[in-house]
Amino acid sequence: MYFHALIPFKPVNPPKTRLSCILDQEEREAFARAMLEDVIAAVQKSGCSATLLCTHPPFKHENALVAVRTESLNDAINWALKQFHCPALIIMADIPLVTAGGDIQRLIRTEKDMSIVPGGRGGGGTNIIFLKKPRCFRADYYGASFLDHMRIAEECGFSVEVIDSFRMSTDIDEKEDLVEILIHGKGRKSREFLENSGFSIALDEKGRVGVQRDPPMKRHSEASIVATPPA
Amino acid sequence: MYFHALIPFKPVNPPKTRLSCILDQEEREAFARAMLEDVIAAVQKSGCSATLLCTHPPFKHENALVAVRTESLNDAINWALKQFHCPALIIMADIPLVTAGGDIQRLIRTEKDMSIVPGGRGGGGTNIIFLKKPRCFRADYYGASFLDHMRIAEECGFSVEVIDSFRMSTDIDEKEDLVEILIHGKGRKSREFLENSGFSIALDEKGRVGVQRDPPMKRHSEASIVATPPA
Repeated sequence: MYFHALIPFKPVNPPKTRLSCILDQEEREAFARAMLEDVIAAVQKSGCSATLLCTHPPFKHENALVAVRTESLNDAINWALKQFHCPALIIMADIPLVTAGGDIQRLIRTEKDMSIVPGGRGGGGTNIIFLKKPRCFRADYYGASFLDHMRIAEECGFSVEVIDSFRMSTDIDEKEDLVEILIHGKGRKSREFLENSGFSIALDEKGRVGVQRDPPMKRHSEASIVATPPA
Repeated sequence: MYFHALIPFKPVNPPKTRLSCILDQEEREAFARAMLEDVIAAVQKSGCSATLLCTHPPFKHENALVAVRTESLNDAINWALKQFHCPALIIMADIPLVTAGGDIQRLIRTEKDMSIVPGGRGGGGTNIIFLKKPRCFRADYYGASFLDHMRIAEECGFSVEVIDSFRMSTDIDEKEDLVEILIHGKGRKSREFLENSGFSIALDEKGRVGVQRDPPMKRHSEASIVATPPA
């Protein structure tokens, strides 16, 4: 089945502030790019084209179309959905564990009008939506968007399949999430980035699994404070 | 396929201390029992019998066998595996979103020697293992048990399927996890317990989804401090 994928992406100052304890801003941008590459690779291996929906120009990508929009994320997505004459996949850029075969195929092979992957733990969000009739739908991200999207689907008269997948539900927001990439992200750009940055799996004193960084993050912000001339 | 399920369970003072901010000890025990009922129901709907492996007597259950053991969790499981003459499922008692049809069937229908569900976010743990030849295997819970179990399977010469499931990977450890039961746990005892205890879905000031409790938890500990006569 031919479909088109829409990947919202913020290239500069990505909103991964909850990773700032372990990655500085420049690194967070590079890490967000690495995760994006993993998502694009999975989408393209599914035999589908991808459009990045960016709200911060300029941004170019070798293997994907880029649409730059100035409105809010929801308005930008809903503008894009109206342009679609084929089924659409809306997929977040921070779910690097997604695979083409086992995962995206599960969504696009649905017999329902729509399939959806809820966001991971403590989220209530939405990681992926597949829509056979995208022009009828309206996205409403932020907050408890999974339940909102289920309600909007009902208003549209859509039948819905909820796809149960740990890999696709795992969005990377916090330090605690990085361990999933190290455990389950073999062959991925995002894992390569973390390993090249000195990350590895570590046990804390209670035997819980987490990540450590060796050597630790450079403190760019402290350095720049020192370099600021006195007023 | 006939198989037997082993469910480790600690009936008194369950180790859900990370929920103590929002459930007192008596409530945590009742909640752990409710989650256990959800897991037992899913196992039994799969057409299989269940044995609770308890390290704290006395405990009786109407619908399940109970084995009481005094050794550590790993030693108790490994003792039990040696008794098995049929395939075995080792399933944790704190994954109440598991379903019989879509979930446990995915494990037991594997063509490999073993199937495994990793634990959820920031975990690295193991939530379910299905073993066609349980007597050859050795469990090693705590810490990064998923990677440990993959290594042990390799040592046993087992082929392995990793099952990708958000529902089965979601173990309930912290306050942030409770929202998943409220969103995805329709018809479950654990959701009924939370709703009867006043829990509901709430957005924080940043628009993130969580739970609130109304009325809030009774402060037994504070009350007992007040009631303590002065020395």
